[in-house]
Amino acid sequence: MATVEQMTAAVHGYVEAFEKGDADLAVALFAQDAIVEDPVGTPLKRGHDEIRAFYAASMATGAKLKLEGPIRCATDYAAFAFRVQLTLEGKLITVDVIDTFRFNNEGKVIEMRAFFGPSNMTGM
Amino acid sequence: MATVEQMTAAVHGYVEAFEKGDADLAVALFAQDAIVEDPVGTPLKRGHDEIRAFYAASMATGAKLKLEGPIRCATDYAAFAFRVQLTLEGKLITVDVIDTFRFNNEGKVIEMRAFFGPSNMTGM
Repeated sequence: MATVEQMTAAVHGYVEAFEKGDADLAVALFAQDAIVEDPVGTPLKRGHDEIRAFYAASMATGAKLKLEGPIRCATDYAAFAFRVQLTLEGKLITVDVIDTFRFNNEGKVIEMRAFFGPSNMTGM
Repeated sequence: MATVEQMTAAVHGYVEAFEKGDADLAVALFAQDAIVEDPVGTPLKRGHDEIRAFYAASMATGAKLKLEGPIRCATDYAAFAFRVQLTLEGKLITVDVIDTFRFNNEGKVIEMRAFFGPSNMTGM
């Protein structure tokens, strides 16, 4: 089972990957066969190649993440709230998001889900 | 599909049920065959009877919920961060939690999951 320390480090590593705009740093947090559902209800990204392409596109918007409140750790899950700021077609957009990460025993993320929708976006 | 307005009203109704200490108010938010996993990793509560017993016990601690940040709505899910204050054996305890609610087409909760663990509790 991943520890609270491993899960906390992964979440901070995720924020840092966006800060640096480095998709490989984000991908390194995930298991080879990980699944990403971002946002919830959209097609899954499966495995490192699809996940890298997804984060490279996300980071191309200049998206930066700011955690809000403590990371919640429940057995093999971490859940965390944050605010994203990014730029699309010259407009600064803010998105309020809650992510859940599920971890394997090696401390890698095997499932990521991002909860947000149009009601959580401002500046569009 | 449940609307953002229905999901938002359900979350506020959930907070209000704790405020009033009324387990039936909480149960009324759930579909008959709903599943509650609180916290994630513990045995599921299934259906209105088990869910009512669970909330009656929770509310007996005087638990009150304070939302933190906006409710995130993604298709048929709402995710929300909050802080709980409750009293156990004479001690005031604070717990930081993130819940996800999944809704059916009638706007009732069919699945609830609560993300928190020992690292999210203070005052124990």
